[in-house]
This record gives sequence, C-alpha cells and structure tokens, in this order.
Amino acid sequence: MSRVVELGGLRMGSAEVASAVEALVQKRRSIRDYVQEPIGRDLILEVLSLAGRAPSAWNLQPWRFVAVTDAAHRETLQAAAFGQNQVGRAPVTVVVYSDMVDTLARIDSVLRADLAPEAKAKTRQSIIGFFETLTDSQRDQWGRAQANIALGYLLLILEAYGLGSSPMLGFDAVQVRSLFGLPDHAEVVALVAFGRPAEEGRASQRHEVASLVRWA
Amino acid sequence: MSRVVELGGLRMGSAEVASAVEALVQKRRSIRDYVQEPIGRDLILEVLSLAGRAPSAWNLQPWRFVAVTDAAHRETLQAAAFGQNQVGRAPVTVVVYSDMVDTLARIDSVLRADLAPEAKAKTRQSIIGFFETLTDSQRDQWGRAQANIALGYLLLILEAYGLGSSPMLGFDAVQVRSLFGLPDHAEVVALVAFGRPAEEGRASQRHEVASLVRWA
Repeated sequence: MSRVVELGGLRMGSAEVASAVEALVQKRRSIRDYVQEPIGRDLILEVLSLAGRAPSAWNLQPWRFVAVTDAAHRETLQAAAFGQNQVGRAPVTVVVYSDMVDTLARIDSVLRADLAPEAKAKTRQSIIGFFETLTDSQRDQWGRAQANIALGYLLLILEAYGLGSSPMLGFDAVQVRSLFGLPDHAEVVALVAFGRPAEEGRASQRHEVASLVRWA
Repeated sequence: MSRVVELGGLRMGSAEVASAVEALVQKRRSIRDYVQEPIGRDLILEVLSLAGRAPSAWNLQPWRFVAVTDAAHRETLQAAAFGQNQVGRAPVTVVVYSDMVDTLARIDSVLRADLAPEAKAKTRQSIIGFFETLTDSQRDQWGRAQANIALGYLLLILEAYGLGSSPMLGFDAVQVRSLFGLPDHAEVVALVAFGRPAEEGRASQRHEVASLVRWA
C-alpha cells in the first residue's frame, strides 16, 4: 500500500490513512458524560451531512434526523429514553429515524442525473414495484435497516471529530415521535448523544473475528 | 479542535484526523471493476475484525460474514446476485448476514466482564425477556438492522485501506443461504464486493442535509 493520497489537504500514505482509521475504530467507546458546552449548529450539520454520504439501496437515503439541543427538549427526551443520563449530559442528542413515505416521495431527486428519461422511468418503476410487494410495516423496517448504515458512518465520523457518542436503542418510540411531531410511519432507529467527552468510557469485548467468518 | 492525538503511531492534530475522514467519506463511490489480484486472508480478517468493532445494542454483535474468494463460489454467488458484474470482477465478495440464534447463544461472552454475577444474570434476563416479546421474524429483522451498523463501518474502513467496494441488496437470499449452508433464520443483510479499484466510480447525489434535519 504505497499509494500517496490527498486527504483533506494532507498528503498521507494510504497505509497511514488505514492506521489512522484503525486507531479511531479501536479507541471508540460509548461515552456517558460530556463537557458542558454547546456544539454549534454548523458542526452538527457537518457531521450529519457526512453521515448522509453513506450509500443506500437505490441511493434512497431513508435516514432523517432531529437534532435536540434545547434544554427543555433534552429533558423531555431523557424522560422518553427511560431517564438515561447521557441524554441529559450531552449537549446534543440526535434522533435518527427513517421516513419511507418522504423517501419514496423524493425518488426523482436521487436517480442518476445522467440517465436518459426512459431509463429514469424504468428505474423509478422498479423501485416502486419493489415496495408494492411489501406491507407498510415491511417497508418501514426496510428503511430502519438502511438508516443504520448511516448510523455506522455517523459514529465513526463523530470519533474522527473528537466527539464522544452514545447510541441508544432504549426509548419509548411513541413518545419520541410525539415529542417532535414525527409521523406514525416514522421508525425511530436510534438516539445518539454526543459532545466533547468528559470521561474515557469503558472498553467492551468483541467476539474473535475468526468466530464470525466462514470462508468459501 | 487543537488536541493532538496518537493515531496509529502518527501524531496528528484532531482537525487533521477529521479532515482525513471527511475526505474518505466524500470520495467513496461504489466500484464495479477491480484489479484482478487476490486479497489475502489476513487483510480480509483485518477489515472484518475492525467492522466488528461497531457498537450494537447490548453489545450483541449479531453480524456474521462469509468471505467468498474461490473462483467457483464467486461464479455461483454472481448467479444468485442476478448476474451483477461486480461479484465476478471483485477478488472478494463478503456476504454480510445476521444470525440471532447464534447471537443469543453467545450472550454470556458479551456481558461486561466486571459485572457481579447477579448483575450479569439480571442483564442476561432482560435481554432474553426483550426477545421473548418478539416473533422470530421480528427478532431476525432486529438482527438485520443492527448488522447494518457494522456494514457502515466496513464500507468506510475499506475506503481507508484503499479498497473499492460495492454493497448490494440485489440477490436471492434463499439461494445465498443454500450456497453457503447458512441456517434458514439467517438474514442476508448485504453482499459487499471489494478489491483494488480499477475504475473511478460514479458520483451519486445526496439530499441537502438541511432537508433531512429538524431542530428541537
């Protein structure tokens, strides 16, 4: 791996880039306590915009976000998250959700711009045809699964920005939807608290990779 | 962001790390043609091991992988993927799947080692209690969604290693399970072809982040 690549204005060997990302992955831990200082909207938009660069099937990008920074909203969100402390301690908690109705209403804007009109119409029809074979619930589960690709991106991106994070699945989805006026079909995928870390976090064990992999 | 962090033996400012990862995210594209050279098992295990560092609810790590490198298996997998060229062109295609039966059989090894025995028993019981409220199909969909967090990690990690990739949802899951002897309850989450890129790939559009975010 001797290529030299331009990354963010740096000339780094690709082995160095691999090492840097490996180190980010290895050092990331869930963080429950945060420095009590706000995170600006520009930075929040920057990390969410990068998370939104994740690939998705047909480029549908079913992920949506509520960025919760207001003190009163953080408090009610913490209650909807069964009181988990990190929602109260973090300057931002992002509600990651998927909205397949909005997603399918935007198909035209995600089709490749260089496609001829008839190719566009064909792709559009095959996407719609696929979702017609699913129940609404299956469609929404599909959106949830795809939105988790962007969640994986988001967690690594936050780490790269020096921000600690805590993804959570423990919350009352009905309450969360109601708090932020999300439609009933919205799938709440995760809450992600983030901010400057005020603790190291705890290491957590992973399965030996050899026990997860088959060869063929 | 003036911290200096040690990453992979480099001393980089954290702003540099953020720029490097931002550049990786921005330049990643789906790759359909690959340099015809094998990727070693050590490298495959390294990227899959890093992907397996992704966080998951209760640290359950429901993701599993079949790494397909053998020429005959790649050919049959390509057929099960509706003939998509990248499966034939890439030196490796990884079948990312989730297996909730195996996942739940391994609960004890993912619980925090520092927990007292009674705390371990309580956590174990609350995990099992949660899955008892789900049908088998809901349980398997849960595993599929969580496995996509590791998929997001994997795609960024491959890019950092200078490897192009193409995640695919188009395949016959029954055939894929049968080809590799995966159990019926396994959810095939995605196929990911990867290798040294032999093309630039095409840029694809993303929604304006402001159209995906609400503030609260």
